[in-house]
Amino acid sequence: MDSAPLFRQMTVVGVGLIGGSLALAARQAGAVRSTVGVGRSKAGCAVARSRKLVDRVAEDLASGVRGADLVVLAVPVREIVRLLPDVARLADPACLVADVGSVKGPILAAGDALFPDGRFVGSHPIAGNEQSGPAAARADLFRGANWILTPGGRTRRAAMERVEALWRAVGARVLRMEAGWHDEVFATVSHLPHLAAYALMDAVLATERGGERIGFSAGGLRDFTRVAGSDPVMWRDIFLMNREPVLKVLAGYQEALERLAAAIRDGDGAAVEARLLRARAAREELVHRS
Amino acid sequence: MDSAPLFRQMTVVGVGLIGGSLALAARQAGAVRSTVGVGRSKAGCAVARSRKLVDRVAEDLASGVRGADLVVLAVPVREIVRLLPDVARLADPACLVADVGSVKGPILAAGDALFPDGRFVGSHPIAGNEQSGPAAARADLFRGANWILTPGGRTRRAAMERVEALWRAVGARVLRMEAGWHDEVFATVSHLPHLAAYALMDAVLATERGGERIGFSAGGLRDFTRVAGSDPVMWRDIFLMNREPVLKVLAGYQEALERLAAAIRDGDGAAVEARLLRARAAREELVHRS
Repeated sequence: MDSAPLFRQMTVVGVGLIGGSLALAARQAGAVRSTVGVGRSKAGCAVARSRKLVDRVAEDLASGVRGADLVVLAVPVREIVRLLPDVARLADPACLVADVGSVKGPILAAGDALFPDGRFVGSHPIAGNEQSGPAAARADLFRGANWILTPGGRTRRAAMERVEALWRAVGARVLRMEAGWHDEVFATVSHLPHLAAYALMDAVLATERGGERIGFSAGGLRDFTRVAGSDPVMWRDIFLMNREPVLKVLAGYQEALERLAAAIRDGDGAAVEARLLRARAAREELVHRS
Repeated sequence: MDSAPLFRQMTVVGVGLIGGSLALAARQAGAVRSTVGVGRSKAGCAVARSRKLVDRVAEDLASGVRGADLVVLAVPVREIVRLLPDVARLADPACLVADVGSVKGPILAAGDALFPDGRFVGSHPIAGNEQSGPAAARADLFRGANWILTPGGRTRRAAMERVEALWRAVGARVLRMEAGWHDEVFATVSHLPHLAAYALMDAVLATERGGERIGFSAGGLRDFTRVAGSDPVMWRDIFLMNREPVLKVLAGYQEALERLAAAIRDGDGAAVEARLLRARAAREELVHRS
């Protein structure tokens, strides 16, 4: 980092895995002079304090946002939309506002409307896992991760570049993407797999003597469990906020399952095999591209 | 191992991941005096020879089975059923015959019919992963793994105990299970997850600009790819041979997905969250039991 920090005071609303890690990483990189955290629960605030994730934990949004030249919203996506009007009202008129939510269309729409002067910057770090909360935060979470910027229709270039510099300072590689395409892509490669994993665990538990069956699980089911251990509130919000893209890819998945079911029902070995080969090709595409 | 081997000559039909590993492990443990492999392809035979997975590679079933006091069928499950009559015809009248297939009901039915004197022992080692073929074979594959024995209606106790001793000698923990229940359990915890993963990769690839989307995949999709990389022929056979249990759990999965889809469509946050919490509980059940 250069000697001059990018921001005087970064206030992170939500000091969970993403918000807490961002605060730690930004301070460690010398990219911000001070960090303030607005916690969503007393327990979360206590962990943020004891782990020193931020310089100061604020009791409420108003006192947390005061004095900030950057506010980062790091709460579940529906909460971001709910809090944005308050942030617009409470923050300094020159303060930049960014979010790190996994769904971008509806958040960008709200950001553009509430910050017509272009101070709102929407983004999505591709980091984190099934863990959540301030106890899981760590300074190296974004090192080498992609961090997607989805400029809104009004976002000022200077605002975007300053925020982008911060994401780079914490070790991320910044990509730009149109918000609508972002939401379709992540409905496909992230939201759908989570939905599939949650439904699978649900279906397994619903079988007769389901708990006993689970005791025999080997690799197959285990690969699904990490995903199904993710935070239910966060994912509920993602599914609801990204409803149309999620329902669209989910319908495609339901069709793919039904085609396989039909081939098995018909005892059509060639059709079953063709489906499995196609799926394996998709997997090779993924391995090849990463 | 004791000084006396359990078997004079073990012939493994199929020297892939399971068959090749069994031959290596049994010899290493001193549990068999000699090992013979019957390969399914010229390429597989060549790898088995160069890696010395067995003492001798046989060109055909007749010469491979000759002189064996144990024949282990380690080929895809439909191939097991297809080969069993030949093995019954070619093997020594006292030779024990075992299989290591992932579906047990139809194989046990054939085994009981073809070996009315109770020499057929059905079993299923819970080992292996998305790798396949003789190149992936290794002597420690069964160390600490569960190996399920599913006695047929006619299986002699002495035959079962001799085969069980061999599975123990290669490091496995032997469990007994009724074949029908085995097939329901593994339809649930193994076959369904594989089906779900194959269909997911298929659906993702089928989206508009699917290959490009795949490039953005992070943890969510990646967890599914290992499973979808499994051998298509082996899994085609499993799905077709275990058709009724697979279709039953698949229907349950399709219902679970549709319930989630309906809750998302209705914007019913409470219902979505309840489903995700239930799924996470199933996951905790699994983690707790393992």
